Amino acid sequence: MNLELRGVEGLPEIHPGDDLAALIVERAGSLRSGDVLVVAQKVVSKAEGRIRTLSEVTPSEQAITLARKLDADPRMVQVVLDETTRIVRDDRVLIVETRQGFVCANAGVDRSNVDGADDVCLLPLDCDVSARTLHERIESLTGARVGVVVSDTFGRAWRMGLVNVALGVAGMPAVLDYRGRPDDFGMPLQATVVAIADELAAAAELLMGKTRRVPAVIAHGLDVFEVAPGTGQELVRPSELDLFR
Amino acid sequence: MNLELRGVEGLPEIHPGDDLAALIVERAGSLRSGDVLVVAQKVVSKAEGRIRTLSEVTPSEQAITLARKLDADPRMVQVVLDETTRIVRDDRVLIVETRQGFVCANAGVDRSNVDGADDVCLLPLDCDVSARTLHERIESLTGARVGVVVSDTFGRAWRMGLVNVALGVAGMPAVLDYRGRPDDFGMPLQATVVAIADELAAAAELLMGKTRRVPAVIAHGLDVFEVAPGTGQELVRPSELDLFR
Repeated sequence: MNLELRGVEGLPEIHPGDDLAALIVERAGSLRSGDVLVVAQKVVSKAEGRIRTLSEVTPSEQAITLARKLDADPRMVQVVLDETTRIVRDDRVLIVETRQGFVCANAGVDRSNVDGADDVCLLPLDCDVSARTLHERIESLTGARVGVVVSDTFGRAWRMGLVNVALGVAGMPAVLDYRGRPDDFGMPLQATVVAIADELAAAAELLMGKTRRVPAVIAHGLDVFEVAPGTGQELVRPSELDLFR
Repeated sequence: MNLELRGVEGLPEIHPGDDLAALIVERAGSLRSGDVLVVAQKVVSKAEGRIRTLSEVTPSEQAITLARKLDADPRMVQVVLDETTRIVRDDRVLIVETRQGFVCANAGVDRSNVDGADDVCLLPLDCDVSARTLHERIESLTGARVGVVVSDTFGRAWRMGLVNVALGVAGMPAVLDYRGRPDDFGMPLQATVVAIADELAAAAELLMGKTRRVPAVIAHGLDVFEVAPGTGQELVRPSELDLFR
């Protein structure tokens, strides 16, 4: 019982309109059905043109007020607000809910590893669509049905440090539901739904690092493909089930 | 650049006083310095005798009241309260802060995969001590300096499903701190401290599953050993830095 992860190295800087699936396939070695591609949101967003240029942003009154409170660039705050449906916290850092329901700092808007000094990178408009598009394009290029996880690095309540989570999922389950299955002593397991796509995203980050230019990782040996495929949206806790929003 | 994870199979049911390190070493194949053992909290707790028997528990008034509200066994609630320093939420589920500062459901007290029908399993008293003890014992048995992560399956705010996190760490860093390092374009990275021990715990869970009797996983190829070793306590967000407690 083994799981192997390998980084996809040598990807060029990604630009809007690039065929990201083809660029990854060329460098990924052999891809087989049942493998999973974990890809960093940033290269997906760049290929999808999800970039804004701060010098072209006019901050609103709300952005200016928040920026003063947070000691931030009001144009950056405006870009964050444009991606936001709800502000969850605005002390120290802007923690918001995005249009897709992700709760994260700055709506996932990020200045690091972006080419133009004045450019910022947004999350994909729909990370599940991004994942499905990559899944289908890889199948058309290679014939392999490869699971795809679009991942990003998020903070957490209660715990220090960031971990990668799964924003978009295609071609593999997002969760495994053990409820009702017998444990090792034959008693039914309770309340055990495991977010395997998040766990795989976290695993892949160990090879991605932040400064290594490894925005894609192939996982081989994940034994979950008898379960129906899921989506990244399954991993978003609905507001009414969330005690911490 | 590869990371390989393999499950350690064939471990017997663990009892108080068992030499868990030896039982794992016998079944783990070759262990080399720089490998990491991720081990499920449950077998560590069993070896350490961290088991209570519900028929021997007398619930307090507080436990009885909470149990009524939560539709739970008051003896189980009492055991949870005995491990708790602060109740964070008591709607639907008891989310508490444990003596070690972990915020989790039921203080990590768990009835699944425990032998006696009336027994429940507690978290280790000090998960970092547990990790260090395993680290040292493995070195004395094999000569290899192996990183150790004691992990458990926790829920999260904002996201559905559980993931494994690192409660105790020894012989490897718990976090990697990228702050100030240049990104791919030479700009300094900001606010990027990655919880690699949590990511490795999550990765290992993919092989552990919940019903497979694989409570230990060996990771080979993690390239972090130039960084000073850390602890699981570094992953606990201090209350005063937590916006969600």
